Amino acid sequence: MSTIIPVAEKVLTENDRLAGLLRDEFAHLGVVVLNLVSSPGSGKTALLERTFQALDMRLSMAVIVGDVETENDARRLEKAGGRLVRPIVTGGACHLDARMVTRARTELPLDGLDLLFIENVGNLVCPSSYDLGEDMKVVLVSTTEGDDKPMKYPGMFRRSGAMVINKTDLLGTSDFDMECVRQNALTINGNLDIMAVSCRTCDGLDEWFAWLERQVAAKRDRGQALCT
Amino acid sequence: MSTIIPVAEKVLTENDRLAGLLRDEFAHLGVVVLNLVSSPGSGKTALLERTFQALDMRLSMAVIVGDVETENDARRLEKAGGRLVRPIVTGGACHLDARMVTRARTELPLDGLDLLFIENVGNLVCPSSYDLGEDMKVVLVSTTEGDDKPMKYPGMFRRSGAMVINKTDLLGTSDFDMECVRQNALTINGNLDIMAVSCRTCDGLDEWFAWLERQVAAKRDRGQALCT
Repeated sequence: MSTIIPVAEKVLTENDRLAGLLRDEFAHLGVVVLNLVSSPGSGKTALLERTFQALDMRLSMAVIVGDVETENDARRLEKAGGRLVRPIVTGGACHLDARMVTRARTELPLDGLDLLFIENVGNLVCPSSYDLGEDMKVVLVSTTEGDDKPMKYPGMFRRSGAMVINKTDLLGTSDFDMECVRQNALTINGNLDIMAVSCRTCDGLDEWFAWLERQVAAKRDRGQALCT
Repeated sequence: MSTIIPVAEKVLTENDRLAGLLRDEFAHLGVVVLNLVSSPGSGKTALLERTFQALDMRLSMAVIVGDVETENDARRLEKAGGRLVRPIVTGGACHLDARMVTRARTELPLDGLDLLFIENVGNLVCPSSYDLGEDMKVVLVSTTEGDDKPMKYPGMFRRSGAMVINKTDLLGTSDFDMECVRQNALTINGNLDIMAVSCRTCDGLDEWFAWLERQVAAKRDRGQALCT
């Protein structure tokens, strides 16, 4: 079984090459690209629904939505007001890769866009290994999953730039401890931006929206600095 | 990237060979082997804790517990009365394979055992491809994850023999629909045994315990039929 190692390396090297091309293009366009990763059912689609509903007038946004099967999430996002939604059905693959995003990207007009979300397949392991040319991975964890997830799936938390704790409306229904999950996450990655929200009650979402706007402003500033 | 296909096939063929050896051994021993699979945080460990607490005097049980990192779940199961608990830390791998189980199995005395649980890595995609020599995969889905999971991750539900819906105490806190998840699951796999439980309130667990005892009795009957 050792033969898989060089082949896996070759696949990842080719993925990194394509991701590098995507990153160059995204930088040229000045669009912030966020790769949303989590367990199945943590609320990635719900967070994007709320984001489209709230920020549609202020930011120009698009989303590439990956799923093993079905285009249900893409349809949910279109219903929530998403005008630029491109589904990817992986047909069994446990993660998105840069080749899939390259193909989906050609069907999305990115000129003038502020934010491109990539909603990855629900999986706390495999998507961590695949660079999609994003500015940052944002990992979601929901209060119903348990506060031990950063310690049990450290690769994902190590490679993310922000963590969104979702379903805070369900705090108290289990022994999930907010301080414990924060400490566990920061033990793995001391640079994580951490936000806590409920996509059901909207509690905490203003902080998430403000964080998104700061990412967009910071990329604009970097773009202007490069032009002068 | 096409080179990964024959290598992946080779890995799976080797896995199937080892799984076949495990299955022969488990059949010889007359032990029922259940491979528990789900998203992270669906409650596999909680279900096993309740099972050890309730059935310890009636059945002889052991568990092999897989995690990407940490032996936390193994420690939880030992605290819950599990006397034969063997952790596997995959160190990054997104699933258990037959080689890991073969190695772990040598450290567990299986003679006279009724039930061996294999708690897989929390991942609704990759573990579905790896036969571990089990009698059956049992897939857990929690009410907080959404009722669309069977449609979005069909491979896992197709390859499972039973589905346990956990966290029924949280019904009503989201738009999760019990009838919808049942119908979705049965659309994928009409032969699924379906049970609904709450590991928090213990609601429905008696049905799970009775189902386990029926699996043990059925395997004993098959073993006696072969001997006569």
